[in-house]
Amino acid sequence: MKLTILGCYAATPRSMTNPTSQVLEIKNHMFLIDCGEGTQVQLRKNKLRFSKINHVFISHLHGDHFYGLIGLISTFSLLNRQTDLYVYGPKGVKEIILLQLKLSNSWTGYNLYFHELESEEPQVIFEDDKVKVTTLPLKHRVYTNGFLFEEKPDLRKLNPDAVKRYGIETCYYHKIKQGSDITLDNGTVIPNTELTFNPPAPKSYAFCSDTMYTEDIVPLLQNVDALYHESTFLESEKHLCERTMHATAMQAASIAVQANAGQLILGHFSTRYDSIEYFKQEAKTVFSNVVLADDGKVFEI
Amino acid sequence: MKLTILGCYAATPRSMTNPTSQVLEIKNHMFLIDCGEGTQVQLRKNKLRFSKINHVFISHLHGDHFYGLIGLISTFSLLNRQTDLYVYGPKGVKEIILLQLKLSNSWTGYNLYFHELESEEPQVIFEDDKVKVTTLPLKHRVYTNGFLFEEKPDLRKLNPDAVKRYGIETCYYHKIKQGSDITLDNGTVIPNTELTFNPPAPKSYAFCSDTMYTEDIVPLLQNVDALYHESTFLESEKHLCERTMHATAMQAASIAVQANAGQLILGHFSTRYDSIEYFKQEAKTVFSNVVLADDGKVFEI
Repeated sequence: MKLTILGCYAATPRSMTNPTSQVLEIKNHMFLIDCGEGTQVQLRKNKLRFSKINHVFISHLHGDHFYGLIGLISTFSLLNRQTDLYVYGPKGVKEIILLQLKLSNSWTGYNLYFHELESEEPQVIFEDDKVKVTTLPLKHRVYTNGFLFEEKPDLRKLNPDAVKRYGIETCYYHKIKQGSDITLDNGTVIPNTELTFNPPAPKSYAFCSDTMYTEDIVPLLQNVDALYHESTFLESEKHLCERTMHATAMQAASIAVQANAGQLILGHFSTRYDSIEYFKQEAKTVFSNVVLADDGKVFEI
Repeated sequence: MKLTILGCYAATPRSMTNPTSQVLEIKNHMFLIDCGEGTQVQLRKNKLRFSKINHVFISHLHGDHFYGLIGLISTFSLLNRQTDLYVYGPKGVKEIILLQLKLSNSWTGYNLYFHELESEEPQVIFEDDKVKVTTLPLKHRVYTNGFLFEEKPDLRKLNPDAVKRYGIETCYYHKIKQGSDITLDNGTVIPNTELTFNPPAPKSYAFCSDTMYTEDIVPLLQNVDALYHESTFLESEKHLCERTMHATAMQAASIAVQANAGQLILGHFSTRYDSIEYFKQEAKTVFSNVVLADDGKVFEI
């Protein structure tokens, strides 16, 4: 899994800082998560082939998380996109996009499917044979979801020496990779573990932004490999969290501890601070594996 | 009058080229003309105090001319703007903006007034004692207006030596500046021209983008000091103008000739060309005073 941060700053786009957007490359998918103003330019700057994006996940309808969506959808049209595009986001996102396309008399030449979200409960919103995406209900000023991206286990890896040694025909290989034992012609049963190696452990990534501190999400995040959790403020500005419904770096770290996360990626920084290093210092006091998101940064998960 | 080009390229925002937006500083106003995606960042990069923008003029509802408007309106809110903001644009712009503010539960803390345009005839849409703004109906794929910005004549400039010589009291100065002659106590009439100098000639600027070649606008543009006319294509791609309803550099120059414009500013360049100098070369074959817009360029008119 490869995560590219296109933008990770709160509120308004500036010359050097971009609002929220990320690209998650997971199995054969390139998922776009949130799409603040300027996302299409950030995609270009980071040399990501955005024709490969077929799924866009929008957490909530605050501008710094979706004002770039209509521009991206229009640019896909100008680039003559033919492939279907799926947009997952709060109810209302469809009306906003279609109204603008209608008024500009610029319908897309590709199919645009909206999967509008209203549930307050976690829901599986995307699933194929390799990947599953589940919503993470968050607590913010408007209806907001985080997203949990989970790889499914790969098939077991064939041990080429073992299958040759037992003279097993290739037509059985797929069953073996699926985990089956094999019975030889002489009746001997060869257990699957002798014929295969463990596949790489499936990875998971959770995106939680924007949200105030809420332990409700902890059970959904158990053992997640990488957790992106917003940290708009430091503890010194904790008093701002209640009204704005944002979290501090310390609170994000506390969620990471309770979820037994492998790694905590902090983001959605307020631009009031002269360095984002403070966020890391604060979170590290309770959780060791903390990294800072930053625009253009790439994480291998 | 000072014109700052924030963006002057067609279609989609790119790393180095921005969609249409301009700031016109005229008398005591800072007018924003069109507002493509990324305009608020361009305002910052060009160090323009965007709290001084009180009037936004939107030519048409294609994305490269207005997708940055909702972001700017939201940023004004985040910056705690209190001053009224006036938006002039095609019918529909109000619905688009209000829908997004409603769904993000983020009403502005300042008054937002929409002046929606539907007329196919030129209309005076803004007027005060120093400036007048008139729409210029253009021919494009959707309802589109250009805008003619005209300074009104200043008061005449008082000749301090002359008024002293005739012993004229200060209470008459304002009438003199307005153009009145003065009758002295002895009955002698002093003509205004002896007491005043001509004020600087009022200037005018016309913004015409996007449009196909149309001579209908020529009478409205007579003797304009500076004409910004779109030139999406060169004559070599003239065949694209009919379907896309854009103009070539040559056609823009022809309008400048017929309008007896002082200067032609070319813009809205397609990014298909490796240099924008070609546009200037082409236009110069029929009109001499041609300059090229470019992102960040400033013109004194």
